[in-house]
Amino acid sequence: SINAERLLNRIRALGEIGRDSDGRLTRLAASDADKAGRDRLVQWLREAELEVVVDRIGNIFGIWRDAGNAENAPVLVGSHIDTVIDAGIYDGCYGVLSGLEVIQTLREAGTAPAHPIAVAAFTNEEGVRYAPDMMGSLVYAGGLSVDQALATVGTDGSVLGEELRRIGYAGADGPGFSKPHAYVELHVEQGPVLEREGVPIGAVENLQGISWQRVTIEGVANHAGTTPMSMRSDAGHAAARVIAFLYDRAMTSNTPTVATVGCIAFEPNAINVIPSRATFTVDLRDPDAERLRAEEAALASYLHDLAAAEDMTIATERLARFEPVTFDARIVGLIEEAATMRGLASKRMTSGAGHDAQMVARVAPAAMIFVPSVGGISHNPREYTTDGDLVAGANVLLDVVQRLAAD
Amino acid sequence: SINAERLLNRIRALGEIGRDSDGRLTRLAASDADKAGRDRLVQWLREAELEVVVDRIGNIFGIWRDAGNAENAPVLVGSHIDTVIDAGIYDGCYGVLSGLEVIQTLREAGTAPAHPIAVAAFTNEEGVRYAPDMMGSLVYAGGLSVDQALATVGTDGSVLGEELRRIGYAGADGPGFSKPHAYVELHVEQGPVLEREGVPIGAVENLQGISWQRVTIEGVANHAGTTPMSMRSDAGHAAARVIAFLYDRAMTSNTPTVATVGCIAFEPNAINVIPSRATFTVDLRDPDAERLRAEEAALASYLHDLAAAEDMTIATERLARFEPVTFDARIVGLIEEAATMRGLASKRMTSGAGHDAQMVARVAPAAMIFVPSVGGISHNPREYTTDGDLVAGANVLLDVVQRLAAD
Ligand SMILES: NC(=O)NCCC(=O)O
Ligand SMILES: NC(=O)NCCC(=O)O
Repeated sequence: SINAERLLNRIRALGEIGRDSDGRLTRLAASDADKAGRDRLVQWLREAELEVVVDRIGNIFGIWRDAGNAENAPVLVGSHIDTVIDAGIYDGCYGVLSGLEVIQTLREAGTAPAHPIAVAAFTNEEGVRYAPDMMGSLVYAGGLSVDQALATVGTDGSVLGEELRRIGYAGADGPGFSKPHAYVELHVEQGPVLEREGVPIGAVENLQGISWQRVTIEGVANHAGTTPMSMRSDAGHAAARVIAFLYDRAMTSNTPTVATVGCIAFEPNAINVIPSRATFTVDLRDPDAERLRAEEAALASYLHDLAAAEDMTIATERLARFEPVTFDARIVGLIEEAATMRGLASKRMTSGAGHDAQMVARVAPAAMIFVPSVGGISHNPREYTTDGDLVAGANVLLDVVQRLAAD
Repeated sequence: SINAERLLNRIRALGEIGRDSDGRLTRLAASDADKAGRDRLVQWLREAELEVVVDRIGNIFGIWRDAGNAENAPVLVGSHIDTVIDAGIYDGCYGVLSGLEVIQTLREAGTAPAHPIAVAAFTNEEGVRYAPDMMGSLVYAGGLSVDQALATVGTDGSVLGEELRRIGYAGADGPGFSKPHAYVELHVEQGPVLEREGVPIGAVENLQGISWQRVTIEGVANHAGTTPMSMRSDAGHAAARVIAFLYDRAMTSNTPTVATVGCIAFEPNAINVIPSRATFTVDLRDPDAERLRAEEAALASYLHDLAAAEDMTIATERLARFEPVTFDARIVGLIEEAATMRGLASKRMTSGAGHDAQMVARVAPAAMIFVPSVGGISHNPREYTTDGDLVAGANVLLDVVQRLAAD
């Protein structure tokens, strides 16, 4: 079994890095806070005597490989350590630090796996500063060219490649090892299912599709006091109608579709000026590929009709688009077996969140292990998983990695 | 008659001060751009040999007074030179520069009015950076204590008093002269009425009530992918519903009520995080005091029901509240007479915008002259009034001021 205290202490220590003066944890990708988190992680990797490789997109790998297995593809475990704004401490970090813990445990136990084992911390999984999300693993898996990814302009106008150079995490080469033998990612569920059902281990067999767009509506600025309602072209009001449409549709649809407008801005954003422009993001998800396409089409048609009815220009820009992913059935089975051997109930389930595993699944057999999130809360400082569940999940990861590395 | 070329040249020159690198005119109250505009105005006032006084709230006065009339209260003309974001060049500046032009014209003509004549540029009329709007004239008229006004925190976190000191426009004393004998303000209409009816002069007899509030809705941040629609407490969606409610109500009411949401912000404002907080401004106006109160009550009751239904906290903060104002009937009559004498059609009308005249009306007989706005467009760089209309309005102002100063 893993060293529970070492794992929990590291999770808590990393969770203190990147708190602002209000105590809010925000380690956006390639920020100063992210650099501080990365530096600490690399220090732990080196203390564990792992070979540290940073690739061009800034993914960090800690590799345990020896003369006996160096010819074989590594078993990869990992996740990310970037966070959203005002985040919890578990999302991503739990998977990376558990990966490190598993390697240290196996090494200290004197095992000699047939495959190298490596832990990865992928760059910009959250997608909050730079879209798309899961960018580092997407590049790693060949789904996006590294040059295109490095040129991404962030919500703050920064360029990812410049920021990675600035914080010292723009590596020179590719990841330094071949396509992995297998990938397993341990993560907090971030949703309500496991807690509601009282099950400690989720064996994640698929992951829903993700559609991110930015919508820009152009109206006409005019005076809030002098312009009769009938003469207005109010971009802000049009945005409000789109948000209400999306929400009401998802709310009443009797499907698992979720719709979120997380970002918004009006221009000129002045109290007595009718907004000339409204910009907002739309996050649509559904486990069913057809249904996700239908939801996107419904939005497009609503925007089309609204633009015509209000005589406004409405533009959409795609920020991310990922089809639903099915994970490797054998690894999902190994997760269930490992849980059973440890006396833990498990449940096959869908992931509501996007994860690096969904990208790595393009190049290697992959699956995920979930542990319960209290209250189903995530992307919130109240994100919480009990120590017992954290340790149980890491032990399941240990067993699964050991099996995969023995092949 | 006034010197048309001098007036038009000054309007255009002032309209170039405060343009950003994109060519957008933004001279927010007490900003660097406002300082540059103020400096230019003061230079013109000094060139016209007026006595320049700056009061504690930063209102600028240019006074023409001589031994023969110094005992009498001045006839005051004026408006403001601060602007909204991405503004036109006429709003406010037209009234201030026409006031200066009228004084210069009367002086050059060798007239000897029974009252001093002064032109005022009031601080922060727009209310975009600091609420309430018409702040300088409100303080001047005794409706708000100068200390309270100076402590106002702006949308950018700045404090008005500190900003006025920084730009060198925190005067030491009160305005330096007693309550005015009368006040007349010339302004572009900023609405569609005069142009639609083909009338060059508006004799403004009243001004509608203004209600400004900031609404803050508290929901719960959670993950956009994992949180089922039924488990969300989405502050952004609630805000969208309020905006739709306000707009639909004003749109279908068959009254002149106008409702605008000009500013909005979500927190944490991240693409895959359900907004935990939405903040937005509400600008409600109606010429009828009862109806404005009813509109405020309808909003309050909607917010109350929404908070209960969604189990959210909704707070409102008052940013400005002004009752409808009726202007001085005699001055309105003088405006009509002056227009007739110059062969110009005129029309009694209501002001949709707030103006400094509405504040000065608390301490002196006051009224306003409007000239047409092409397309009814204002608070927009496309704000435009023809030179002919600008000059006609300034000549009407000249005649009215001459009459008032003769009493
Ligand atoms: N796990 C996680 O929160 N990923 C962020 C990407 C997303 O699902 O929005
Ligand atoms: N005239 C003018 O635009 N005033 C600004 C205050 C307001 O009416 O919102």
